[in-house]
Amino acid sequence: MAAKVKTAVLGATGYAGYELTRLLLRHERLQKPLLLKRESGGGGADLSASFPALSGNGGYPLEPFSVAKLKEAGVDLLFFATPHELSRSLVPEVVRAGVRVIDLSGAWRLRRTEHRDIYGFGDADVKAVHEAMAQAVYGLPELRSKEIADAALVANPGCYATSVILALAPLLAAGLIDRERGIISDSKSGVSGAGKDATARTHFVSVADNLSAYGVFKHRHVGEMVEQLNLNLDELTFTPHLLPIPRGILSTIYVKLSRSCTSAEVETCYRDAYKGRRWVRVFSPPQLPEIQYSLHSNHCDIGFCLADDARRLVIVSCVDNLLKGAAGQAVQNMNVIYGWNEAEGLQ
Amino acid sequence: MAAKVKTAVLGATGYAGYELTRLLLRHERLQKPLLLKRESGGGGADLSASFPALSGNGGYPLEPFSVAKLKEAGVDLLFFATPHELSRSLVPEVVRAGVRVIDLSGAWRLRRTEHRDIYGFGDADVKAVHEAMAQAVYGLPELRSKEIADAALVANPGCYATSVILALAPLLAAGLIDRERGIISDSKSGVSGAGKDATARTHFVSVADNLSAYGVFKHRHVGEMVEQLNLNLDELTFTPHLLPIPRGILSTIYVKLSRSCTSAEVETCYRDAYKGRRWVRVFSPPQLPEIQYSLHSNHCDIGFCLADDARRLVIVSCVDNLLKGAAGQAVQNMNVIYGWNEAEGLQ
Amino acid sequence: MAAKVKTAVLGATGYAGYELTRLLLRHERLQKPLLLKRESGGGGADLSASFPALSGNGGYPLEPFSVAKLKEAGVDLLFFATPHELSRSLVPEVVRAGVRVIDLSGAWRLRRTEHRDIYGFGDADVKAVHEAMAQAVYGLPELRSKEIADAALVANPGCYATSVILALAPLLAAGLIDRERGIISDSKSGVSGAGKDATARTHFVSVADNLSAYGVFKHRHVGEMVEQLNLNLDELTFTPHLLPIPRGILSTIYVKLSRSCTSAEVETCYRDAYKGRRWVRVFSPPQLPEIQYSLHSNHCDIGFCLADDARRLVIVSCVDNLLKGAAGQAVQNMNVIYGWNEAEGLQ
Amino acid sequence: MAAKVKTAVLGATGYAGYELTRLLLRHERLQKPLLLKRESGGGGADLSASFPALSGNGGYPLEPFSVAKLKEAGVDLLFFATPHELSRSLVPEVVRAGVRVIDLSGAWRLRRTEHRDIYGFGDADVKAVHEAMAQAVYGLPELRSKEIADAALVANPGCYATSVILALAPLLAAGLIDRERGIISDSKSGVSGAGKDATARTHFVSVADNLSAYGVFKHRHVGEMVEQLNLNLDELTFTPHLLPIPRGILSTIYVKLSRSCTSAEVETCYRDAYKGRRWVRVFSPPQLPEIQYSLHSNHCDIGFCLADDARRLVIVSCVDNLLKGAAGQAVQNMNVIYGWNEAEGLQ
Repeated sequence: MAAKVKTAVLGATGYAGYELTRLLLRHERLQKPLLLKRESGGGGADLSASFPALSGNGGYPLEPFSVAKLKEAGVDLLFFATPHELSRSLVPEVVRAGVRVIDLSGAWRLRRTEHRDIYGFGDADVKAVHEAMAQAVYGLPELRSKEIADAALVANPGCYATSVILALAPLLAAGLIDRERGIISDSKSGVSGAGKDATARTHFVSVADNLSAYGVFKHRHVGEMVEQLNLNLDELTFTPHLLPIPRGILSTIYVKLSRSCTSAEVETCYRDAYKGRRWVRVFSPPQLPEIQYSLHSNHCDIGFCLADDARRLVIVSCVDNLLKGAAGQAVQNMNVIYGWNEAEGLQ
Repeated sequence: MAAKVKTAVLGATGYAGYELTRLLLRHERLQKPLLLKRESGGGGADLSASFPALSGNGGYPLEPFSVAKLKEAGVDLLFFATPHELSRSLVPEVVRAGVRVIDLSGAWRLRRTEHRDIYGFGDADVKAVHEAMAQAVYGLPELRSKEIADAALVANPGCYATSVILALAPLLAAGLIDRERGIISDSKSGVSGAGKDATARTHFVSVADNLSAYGVFKHRHVGEMVEQLNLNLDELTFTPHLLPIPRGILSTIYVKLSRSCTSAEVETCYRDAYKGRRWVRVFSPPQLPEIQYSLHSNHCDIGFCLADDARRLVIVSCVDNLLKGAAGQAVQNMNVIYGWNEAEGLQ
Repeated sequence: MAAKVKTAVLGATGYAGYELTRLLLRHERLQKPLLLKRESGGGGADLSASFPALSGNGGYPLEPFSVAKLKEAGVDLLFFATPHELSRSLVPEVVRAGVRVIDLSGAWRLRRTEHRDIYGFGDADVKAVHEAMAQAVYGLPELRSKEIADAALVANPGCYATSVILALAPLLAAGLIDRERGIISDSKSGVSGAGKDATARTHFVSVADNLSAYGVFKHRHVGEMVEQLNLNLDELTFTPHLLPIPRGILSTIYVKLSRSCTSAEVETCYRDAYKGRRWVRVFSPPQLPEIQYSLHSNHCDIGFCLADDARRLVIVSCVDNLLKGAAGQAVQNMNVIYGWNEAEGLQ
Repeated sequence: MAAKVKTAVLGATGYAGYELTRLLLRHERLQKPLLLKRESGGGGADLSASFPALSGNGGYPLEPFSVAKLKEAGVDLLFFATPHELSRSLVPEVVRAGVRVIDLSGAWRLRRTEHRDIYGFGDADVKAVHEAMAQAVYGLPELRSKEIADAALVANPGCYATSVILALAPLLAAGLIDRERGIISDSKSGVSGAGKDATARTHFVSVADNLSAYGVFKHRHVGEMVEQLNLNLDELTFTPHLLPIPRGILSTIYVKLSRSCTSAEVETCYRDAYKGRRWVRVFSPPQLPEIQYSLHSNHCDIGFCLADDARRLVIVSCVDNLLKGAAGQAVQNMNVIYGWNEAEGLQ
């Protein structure tokens, strides 16, 4: 077997970073990952202080991040599980130092000029950001595995975006969707998608026994959806909702077909598109995905229901926001980069 | 003060019937309600056996239903909180006996010939059902208070239907919606809406940490929505979802306006329509309703968000499925019938 | 009918203060309550900004607190729903100004010298605190209604303490408990008991799908339990737990009887003690209280199970922590003070 | 590497059986497990019909159980995840046929004559049951790994029992507990512990926002606790509660020490007892286990808090009821039987 790859994680104390760390720890092609924190970072000196589920397994020290540290430790691949502002400050230097990067933040996902301001620049060097952005590849392996394999910088997709893009891409590619009629994604996410910061909005009493829509017409993931799907901004209406569950996303997507179709044609379109793709499961009608089915797995589950008029189509798409929507997809991208089976470390 | 009205409830052991009973018990215009069960009905002889929250307050005996019993007890108004099959068997006789009926089931909600089969006839007398249906008034007081006041039989609306109809009626009446583009309601309900029967689907482990769509293009409430809103069946796409919460409904509704509007125009349309209506609250943008806001109240809360293109409109509408979606609305209908303030017994 | 009493609430933006405000708003003996905030208090100028469930009902302005304001508004009774440090600073002056006080904080609950430090003094005047403390009456109406009726300052009990004291007092008074064997209360509370502050501990993801014990041997409510029950500190072991629900407390209490008893004797002891007490419900074995039964009510529900050895007794006691455990009990205390029926405004 | 072992599961459609199947599927020492159902068993012909999370991974056919089928398929080890009545009917014949059995039901856990009736005999052959019982080994590897290694029939422990026995055994063995004072375990479990049958008690609306005690002084797991801990029945008071979460158990255990101890002594007692035991984690005070920490893992987590009086000890013990409390422990037992590392297939 080839030498084991050395990975590192910056931001392991967040939900996605923690999930990622757990995946990396049991991935057989990897050395034990190096866990990094910002030099000024507070919190405990060991990851188990933030996540006691790790207690007693031998120590997960968090070390201060620096490019020198990466070189000294022989890091081949660094995962960023950080706020996008921090990614924008640090990623360019890391890439220039020859360390591959998979960034779970939104910092490098957008290419179109009109989307450049969706994620701010903070105190990052704008020129360096633009240079890095030019190298970044959108890391949705079902759509772009060849580019990912060669990328120095992979922009790991947003969780909502993953559920929406994978549900729509095959139909759009086949010209089956009447784009002018508009596409609607009514998406619902568990609370871990809102991050680990304690806010009035993430307080248990605010979330339990509740459901709320938020960010209507304003959510940042719309940018990557329309870019990846090659849509105009006003062709896609996206409404996220906060569910009273810890994790999981379900998107209910409404499209009008451009011509009358049978249910079998729609299913064939999906099955052809995802043939051989280990992490997308297409459900046959009338079965529809539910959040539980893909929870704690890297699957994106897709099902649909066609109206009697043979035109109105409802698609249901589910992912675990921390796995296929974040850490699992990051590992899948790593597998693509190194030419490993996409399922390694994810089963 | 006028003599107190005598009410009765058939079906108090279900969720809606229980909620209704609690409202009737504290309504100051009413005598203590008579609680009825089917003669063959099992379960305890007292409602507190099914709902121990009533323990120790003095006894809620359940007596066998018969028309003779109604007459003997001097019942003025009988609420049915029963499966629609049972309503179809029993309501015609009760109405003929001169007792007013408010029926929480779906038995009498639909008028159009093509919808007649949505609710089956069971072992009911089809002719009697058709006669009763001809007298029935759809009990949405914000739209039909005059007809309700005179009705011998009020068909209390469905929970989903209440949230959707109240959100759409003002805009449709004002001609603001481009119906040809289609209207979509993505609705989410708590589990009490699925009834008290223990099934694989209502098992805690099936619901918790989950979300699922069901009945896509097939839910029975669509019939009443299109009838009340005067839509064609293919103009409305309705997708219900089962939320991991005990109660509450949120509908996210997508329409395209028939002309460019400002947010203020939309708000005015709603405020004009619901002026003086105690149980509809219109929210000003950017505030949107959440399920918690109307929980344990009889409110239907309506808010919206208009896209920058001045055409795409997202409406959010919330009700407590057991109150404005069932028992509360039934009490409101009773208040209308007797000319009382619509808020009596509901505050 | 007598003139309506004027109440005020300081701290209506917390969970208990909000619940209290809702109760006061519908209490028929009261004028609309005056809602007060600390002068430096942030947040909206209207309570509906914190609790949108109040939207559209006419305005709940929050006005800056001052004793002058109380006098000007003719306030008869001021409820404090504040952190105990703030109560200690402000209550003495209010009481001296002749305004009655019911304080929901822990500031005035403890009398024994050895407990004085359980609640700190912050920047309060220690002498004034001690003076106020000397006047304070512990506001558990089932045990002390006479003293409460005359009190200038009522210390509203803690939520856990209410569930434990009411479950134990009758048996202790009857000498039925072998105190030397130790009394154990394993108590579980919903998250609203932890307050509205957003912390890592109240984050939805930390609480959902979880249960945790905390404050073992250290919780502040133990002080009031042992004082009110006349126990030594080491005779009572109290372990609170955080439940993944918004509200409700269940205490499972373990005692050894001082002599062999029948189940009927135990039940009689409870029923005699709480005869005529509207807000305590005694359950007959084998039925035990559950949190749902007393939710959204002011009941304290008590049930028990006696072992075959006729000595080991398990008592289960439930309250809604925001009602009988806080705001409901405060209203009950007000009813006692003014000689009204204890159930007024609480049904 | 040695030839792979052939396992089979009877009862994979229950929660524990399903969890077990998932573990067996990824255990590297095993062939793909044979999934069996009772001949009369209803349900789908494939396990993915019951658990759609398995969709699309290649088929999990359920075949009718018979001893002939076991022999034909070359099954070395059969797991029973069945009701105890069925185990009592079928296990004796399987054992006689030379197939090893690990039974997750309670059928073979109890040895003492006075406990024999705790689990009924159904239509089983009483003599055959007694013979099988005589061969059965209680499968708690931390206490009995040697006997397990040689056993033809392993009685996999109950979920509650696992959490209680592991928390108490070291202290009892060291003589540190004053047994005469009584031991109390206040235990709380998620709903999967109540099984997959849809009942009024497992309905989402009954469980959500609730907590209830049940089976006080009557739960069947008490038998195995007292047998394994060598206690008299009246020395242990055990109260189970139903938590509004899908899975996880937390037991809060109260003992009085037989002599004054320091916290360090208690910790040393635990650490010595579980030295080298991969699946027990001892927490150092003041940290206590929480349900989330051991969820989805095979850990039993144990922590404690000692009172200032150096005598009263509160122990907190957590397991995932479906893993260390059922399927995980079964796999651990299999690892012991075959001499594999106890962690295989469980990480």
